[in-house]
Amino acid sequence: MAHEPGAPLRVALLGCGVVGSAVARMLVEQADDLAARAGARLEIVGIAVRRPQRPRPDVPVDPALFTADAEELVTRADVVIEVIGGIDPARALILRAMEHGASVVSANKALLAEDGPTLYDTAARYGVDLYYEAAVAGAIPILRPIQESLAGDHVRKVMGIVNGTTNFVLDAMDVSGAGFAETVAQAQALGYAEADPTADIEGFDAAAKAAILASLAFHTRVSAADVHREGITEVTAADIRAARENDCVVKLLAICERVTADGTDAVSVRVHPAMVPRSHPLASVREAFNAVFVESAAAGELMFYGRGAGGDPTASAVLGDVVAVARHRVAGGRGPGESAYADLPVVDMGQAVTRYHISLDVADRPGVLAQVAAAFADHGVSIETVRQQAVAGEGERAKLIVVTHRASDAALSATVSALGSLDAVDDVASVMRVEGA
Amino acid sequence: MAHEPGAPLRVALLGCGVVGSAVARMLVEQADDLAARAGARLEIVGIAVRRPQRPRPDVPVDPALFTADAEELVTRADVVIEVIGGIDPARALILRAMEHGASVVSANKALLAEDGPTLYDTAARYGVDLYYEAAVAGAIPILRPIQESLAGDHVRKVMGIVNGTTNFVLDAMDVSGAGFAETVAQAQALGYAEADPTADIEGFDAAAKAAILASLAFHTRVSAADVHREGITEVTAADIRAARENDCVVKLLAICERVTADGTDAVSVRVHPAMVPRSHPLASVREAFNAVFVESAAAGELMFYGRGAGGDPTASAVLGDVVAVARHRVAGGRGPGESAYADLPVVDMGQAVTRYHISLDVADRPGVLAQVAAAFADHGVSIETVRQQAVAGEGERAKLIVVTHRASDAALSATVSALGSLDAVDDVASVMRVEGA
Ligand SMILES: NC(=O)c1ccc[n+]([C@@H]2O[C@H](COP(=O)([O-])OP(=O)(O)OC[C@H]3O[C@@H](n4cnc5c(N)ncnc54)[C@H](OP(=O)(O)O)[C@@H]3O)[C@@H](O)[C@H]2O)c1
Ligand SMILES: NC(=O)c1ccc[n+]([C@@H]2O[C@H](COP(=O)([O-])OP(=O)(O)OC[C@H]3O[C@@H](n4cnc5c(N)ncnc54)[C@H](OP(=O)(O)O)[C@@H]3O)[C@@H](O)[C@H]2O)c1
Repeated sequence: MAHEPGAPLRVALLGCGVVGSAVARMLVEQADDLAARAGARLEIVGIAVRRPQRPRPDVPVDPALFTADAEELVTRADVVIEVIGGIDPARALILRAMEHGASVVSANKALLAEDGPTLYDTAARYGVDLYYEAAVAGAIPILRPIQESLAGDHVRKVMGIVNGTTNFVLDAMDVSGAGFAETVAQAQALGYAEADPTADIEGFDAAAKAAILASLAFHTRVSAADVHREGITEVTAADIRAARENDCVVKLLAICERVTADGTDAVSVRVHPAMVPRSHPLASVREAFNAVFVESAAAGELMFYGRGAGGDPTASAVLGDVVAVARHRVAGGRGPGESAYADLPVVDMGQAVTRYHISLDVADRPGVLAQVAAAFADHGVSIETVRQQAVAGEGERAKLIVVTHRASDAALSATVSALGSLDAVDDVASVMRVEGA
Repeated sequence: MAHEPGAPLRVALLGCGVVGSAVARMLVEQADDLAARAGARLEIVGIAVRRPQRPRPDVPVDPALFTADAEELVTRADVVIEVIGGIDPARALILRAMEHGASVVSANKALLAEDGPTLYDTAARYGVDLYYEAAVAGAIPILRPIQESLAGDHVRKVMGIVNGTTNFVLDAMDVSGAGFAETVAQAQALGYAEADPTADIEGFDAAAKAAILASLAFHTRVSAADVHREGITEVTAADIRAARENDCVVKLLAICERVTADGTDAVSVRVHPAMVPRSHPLASVREAFNAVFVESAAAGELMFYGRGAGGDPTASAVLGDVVAVARHRVAGGRGPGESAYADLPVVDMGQAVTRYHISLDVADRPGVLAQVAAAFADHGVSIETVRQQAVAGEGERAKLIVVTHRASDAALSATVSALGSLDAVDDVASVMRVEGA
């Protein structure tokens, strides 16, 4: 596999959709710059797609390069770029490429989060690179900074807005005051949400990214199945209003955090909507933008902001990785492989600790606040603030808004059940975690 | 220089001040994590300082490791960390370390901006690494993202708040309305400005960082001497007020930009105060924080935010580099090396193109606006908006506030001279560039 000086590197592209077509175009249009930076010309030797006959006028390559035979293609490349997506056949193709000595660049968060270790093991066995910067937060350089720039530091928390669709929806709800279903329909009309938006709005996409971020930040294997996941389908206009009254916005966050559980180091990895104070840098991430906030022992607070998706932005991240793996083919060396030495346990959501914002519809009579406060105290949840609002036109009803200090999710759930069974409480109208305060 | 498996790597630390003492502490306290990440234990073999006898209770190492003989120390290390600062003896020590086969990590922006190519050439000759992430924007991973993550993209502009002292001063002036001298004194009292603040407030520090950023972003040698530099000493409370009225803040920016000059590609590299709209992500960078905004063809807009200085944050960046170069010693390979193939010319400030905000004190009588407008038109500077304000209590005087479209600095300077000689203009009260609109 030694590279012959002056020879081009053979690049195989798997997939030529939104991301792949941008990658192909940039490989052609920026060929000279890429060659100067990588140390060798990058020559596309084939592009595997489902429909090789389909005209692709925006991809400036010889149509003879398109093939339906991805399995054959990966055996004759130095660098394989996988932008098909999904688990199969992407996984088998990547493994086969590595077995034939190719380094791999992928944008496939679903696969990395489901079965990263198999890919890493195979890369190590065959001495090739596996890079996937594009898999998390699109164009934003975030994996390389966590994995390499912060390699001498101790990362405490990674908290990101890593799904553009849900951020677009929540931001639009905040601006318009509209409800969830209506806003999703509008996002679909504008192309910000897919026809079947499940992977985004149920938090599956963010959970895959959380697993990848946690693995790198904490040197521990974390898969999508380890991630506690709540989407945004239950976020109501009332929640957004409540957040606004609390000087917060609602964001879907992917949170990876070091915690202490039963006296030992562990990690909590979760995706859920949360209120974020408007003064926090993540609060000003609007529309479909992404941002990742990192807190580490020595560096302190860092934030990375940019476009989380789209053909060109994602292709930028893919090609940065392609230059890195190509440089290694030419000049020797390999990127940092898997680092899972810390092997920390992942705690249940019940052990995750955060603050909560709870709105209750209650009877407006003496003694109610005392009952409510007792329910919190009974479960060891300490209250930071309580605000009582009379409900206009309903003399006997009031709203109680409680913000807690940090408490475990288990204690909070038990508190909410207890509140629900109090006579004086008509309804637990909204419960939302508060992050970044 | 092949690394023997299992053997520790010998680390020499040059300098043990603000940054060096944090580096030494982290090398000791995080030794196990660093070993797991680098692939070998990192053993401090010596710490060179001016005063080796001085007690350093916050540095948990054997006092016998301190030495005044840096020249000898660098000959017996695999990795040399240079955190002395300044040009001499830092340069000679780094070169000597490389000649003896050591890889080098430095935080020395002054040296890199003055003589980076010599260092790079020597690193290449001896096959060693030269890393310096800490030299720009402290803890913020910015060099690795530009050099590696964006290696497949086409960077158009890098615009950063890279000096914490000046940002602290300008932010405090914005909040308090106070003048420059008073605010600098306050920053000194709080430890945000040095006793001799020249390097910061005159823009020398930012200019060194601009040169480094431009070199990496544009694959072109740019040294500090190529950077147009204006500090913040002439920024007045009136300028800050004018910015505020224009819904802007004043920031000292390091700007590296691709331009077209005389029909060919070139770069403009400059440091100067500028008005930035409050809606721009850089506007919300408060106090001594740093942030770098990057615009590239495919990735679009990215921002990186965090702490630009301080012992621990800077040590975080240094140690990330140490792990990278240590990994290369253990596993083979080298970092990216100098890339200056594009070799673009650096244009004079006169050819830099931006927008301007100009306040004029004028006579309040018919025809003045026409005269002023003519002065702009004569020099080919086109006006975006003009606002006229009566000056309270001075019936015959008014203020004209002009914001231009993009124009060259040369055309603007000529316009300002012409304005100054108009009868109707009493004073050109403030001229400031506008960026990020
Ligand atoms: N889109 C984004 O903004 C974005 C952002 C970050 C990461 N990603 C990731 O990037 C990857 C690609 O996403 P995308 O949006 O570009 O997907 P896409 O537009 O659906 O494109 C998929 C491509 O794969 C080809 N393909 C599908 N099945 C195949 C098979 N069995 N063999 C060979 N080729 C096959 C398709 O061929 P045809 O063209 O013939 O249908 C198409 O060219 C996914 O992992 C995604 O998660 C995407
Ligand atoms: N401070 C920051 O926040 C920051 C941020 C980013 C980058 N940097 C860069 O990091 C570098 C170090 O900055 P610093 O703030 O740590 O400086 P510092 O506190 O002044 O420390 C300088 C150290 O170098 C030693 N030294 C000076 N001359 C020497 C010589 N000729 N031989 C051997 N040792 C010598 C000093 O020894 P003694 O202890 O005996 O005096 C001291 O330990 C500079 O390049 C700076 O630009 C600093």
